[in-house]
Amino acid sequence: MNQKRPRAIIFDVFGSVVDWRTSLIDELTAFGQTRGILADWTALVDAWRGEYVPSMKRVAAGELPWMTLDELHRASLDKLVVEQEIKGLSESDLVHMTLGWHRLKPWPDSVAGLNRLKSRYIISPLSNGNVSLLVNMAKGANLPWDLVLGSDIFGYFKPAPETYLGAARLLGLEPGEVMMAAAHNADLKAAKALGLMTAFFVRPTEYGPAQKYDLEPRGDWDYIASDIEDLASKLGV
Amino acid sequence: MNQKRPRAIIFDVFGSVVDWRTSLIDELTAFGQTRGILADWTALVDAWRGEYVPSMKRVAAGELPWMTLDELHRASLDKLVVEQEIKGLSESDLVHMTLGWHRLKPWPDSVAGLNRLKSRYIISPLSNGNVSLLVNMAKGANLPWDLVLGSDIFGYFKPAPETYLGAARLLGLEPGEVMMAAAHNADLKAAKALGLMTAFFVRPTEYGPAQKYDLEPRGDWDYIASDIEDLASKLGV
Repeated sequence: MNQKRPRAIIFDVFGSVVDWRTSLIDELTAFGQTRGILADWTALVDAWRGEYVPSMKRVAAGELPWMTLDELHRASLDKLVVEQEIKGLSESDLVHMTLGWHRLKPWPDSVAGLNRLKSRYIISPLSNGNVSLLVNMAKGANLPWDLVLGSDIFGYFKPAPETYLGAARLLGLEPGEVMMAAAHNADLKAAKALGLMTAFFVRPTEYGPAQKYDLEPRGDWDYIASDIEDLASKLGV
Repeated sequence: MNQKRPRAIIFDVFGSVVDWRTSLIDELTAFGQTRGILADWTALVDAWRGEYVPSMKRVAAGELPWMTLDELHRASLDKLVVEQEIKGLSESDLVHMTLGWHRLKPWPDSVAGLNRLKSRYIISPLSNGNVSLLVNMAKGANLPWDLVLGSDIFGYFKPAPETYLGAARLLGLEPGEVMMAAAHNADLKAAKALGLMTAFFVRPTEYGPAQKYDLEPRGDWDYIASDIEDLASKLGV
């Protein structure tokens, strides 16, 4: 009852708020049928997500200049289309597919949970997605953010400290007044090390039926919830 | 009917969306009565706003380091309290008064007009206010922004090009797909020079009953409306 509460809650988005895997598999399967293009779309989506962390690490290491996640997604797709021998894709097809990340669908509890939280707390994504991706996603999925903090505001990807501390600075709050909420223990570990509060909820099928990681909390997080609606309940709204 | 339409609309806030003068005079008058502090609160508010542009120009000229509008507001208040010989204000009073800029009230048409525009367009402030000021204001006044672009995201105040072009960049749009909407001709002139679309609406009492400027459009703006509801009508929503 007396547990400390944050002033603002910043959310990881891919996997935590939206179900990138099912969204992309469904969209690309329908797209392939419409366009008459043969591919193992599930394999493409899993490999595409597989490039996500390595591609950001190449930017963080200085092997690549700063670029947005949209640009990294496109570069990874170009590579995978060759590797997986997917034929017949036009330039506009590749643009459309890359923008599929702007059209991801929320988990069933996300919109209701965020609306409840918004009634008392400032809510924002803190995502490696760029602002335009996150804004287009929010418009399409009815995510009621108070503001949108994308990686291109900071010029860094998580888990760089500039992202977590930059969010607190822009919110005019101390790090300890801001809570990072995510389905990923590594994200929370980085936030906690900088003094932010933390909330974990599990998304057991984010990576499909054979998911091996992030099936349980692995840290001394301030709040542990079953989903975003449950987090709202635990935060008194 | 065939007039070009933007993808996103970015709004000037102080004076265009919220009525800073009446809001602050009302709040400070009530505050003075409660605290038993004598002052000409209307004179203080007008002088405080009078410091706004000069204080930002000192930052732009490099005479002051970058600081947020909250910090400039506080510095201006400290100076004016001495000049106007207002006695008895504590540190917490000065903090509270400065945060009055976070609690400004919207013009009667603002919330309804923004909600209509949000149904089809991306809407954001593009303000010299800092993000936290704009977020707190939006929470208090029910301004339904899709995202919040404050000057501390860019490290520049309007009319620096970095603000208008930075907004387009973060939105993933060409400048010509973004429309600056304001009750101030100078703001629109700077935006138009960079290729943005422009919309003007008049706020004839922003500076009080004796307002002398911005009583009519003074440029070839794309849209001219009587207020934000009228702008929504002219944009088809």
